Amino acid sequence: MADVRDKPSTRPTLRGRLWIETDGLALTEAGADLLEQIDVCGSLSEAARKLRFSYRRAWMLVDAMNHRWPGPLVKLSTGGRGGGGAKLTESGRRIVGAYRDLQIQFEHFLDASTGAFRKTTR
Amino acid sequence: MADVRDKPSTRPTLRGRLWIETDGLALTEAGADLLEQIDVCGSLSEAARKLRFSYRRAWMLVDAMNHRWPGPLVKLSTGGRGGGGAKLTESGRRIVGAYRDLQIQFEHFLDASTGAFRKTTR
Repeated sequence: MADVRDKPSTRPTLRGRLWIETDGLALTEAGADLLEQIDVCGSLSEAARKLRFSYRRAWMLVDAMNHRWPGPLVKLSTGGRGGGGAKLTESGRRIVGAYRDLQIQFEHFLDASTGAFRKTTR
Repeated sequence: MADVRDKPSTRPTLRGRLWIETDGLALTEAGADLLEQIDVCGSLSEAARKLRFSYRRAWMLVDAMNHRWPGPLVKLSTGGRGGGGAKLTESGRRIVGAYRDLQIQFEHFLDASTGAFRKTTR
């Protein structure tokens, strides 16, 4: 009897992941998502909730990002009714925008490469 | 006192990872390394040892790869003095070669994008 796993039903597709390093991980997919949610929500705890990150994880991610660039990407303010606020800095907004642009170019690269790869290996 | 973490000493560098999917993970960096070592060693256990993979991990990786392409990438033969042999098939060799070519193009993409990114965000 033929092994039912023998023929994959899906053609080969190239996938990938992009991140930015300085002295360590400086921007990842998860970090970019968090920055964008902070920009929308104006609050770290709300941004974390939207992404189903623990507050601790979100805080540590922001802290790491803030220290791996020449200037902070997020400004946190404490206190006041409803807890502190969180705001992207000018460079935070520029960096996450540039990363998203790169991701779009990367998607094009993956699409084109998938086509080339299928031709070479069929 | 200034926070010593404030200024990363390394400029932002784009990094990434590429893999190929069909019905699941069909070729990863680790899988490509293993295929190449099999080609060099002619033996799965020796290839696994070189890469410090457990034999079980190597065997499962080969089994998954063999079932996620239209034909197997590795032919295993059992028995004989010194255990069984392992050999890349024609399509195994073609696929790992095409993947390595893509990785080289991807490195170019990362280098070019790193330059563009640094200009946009400095």
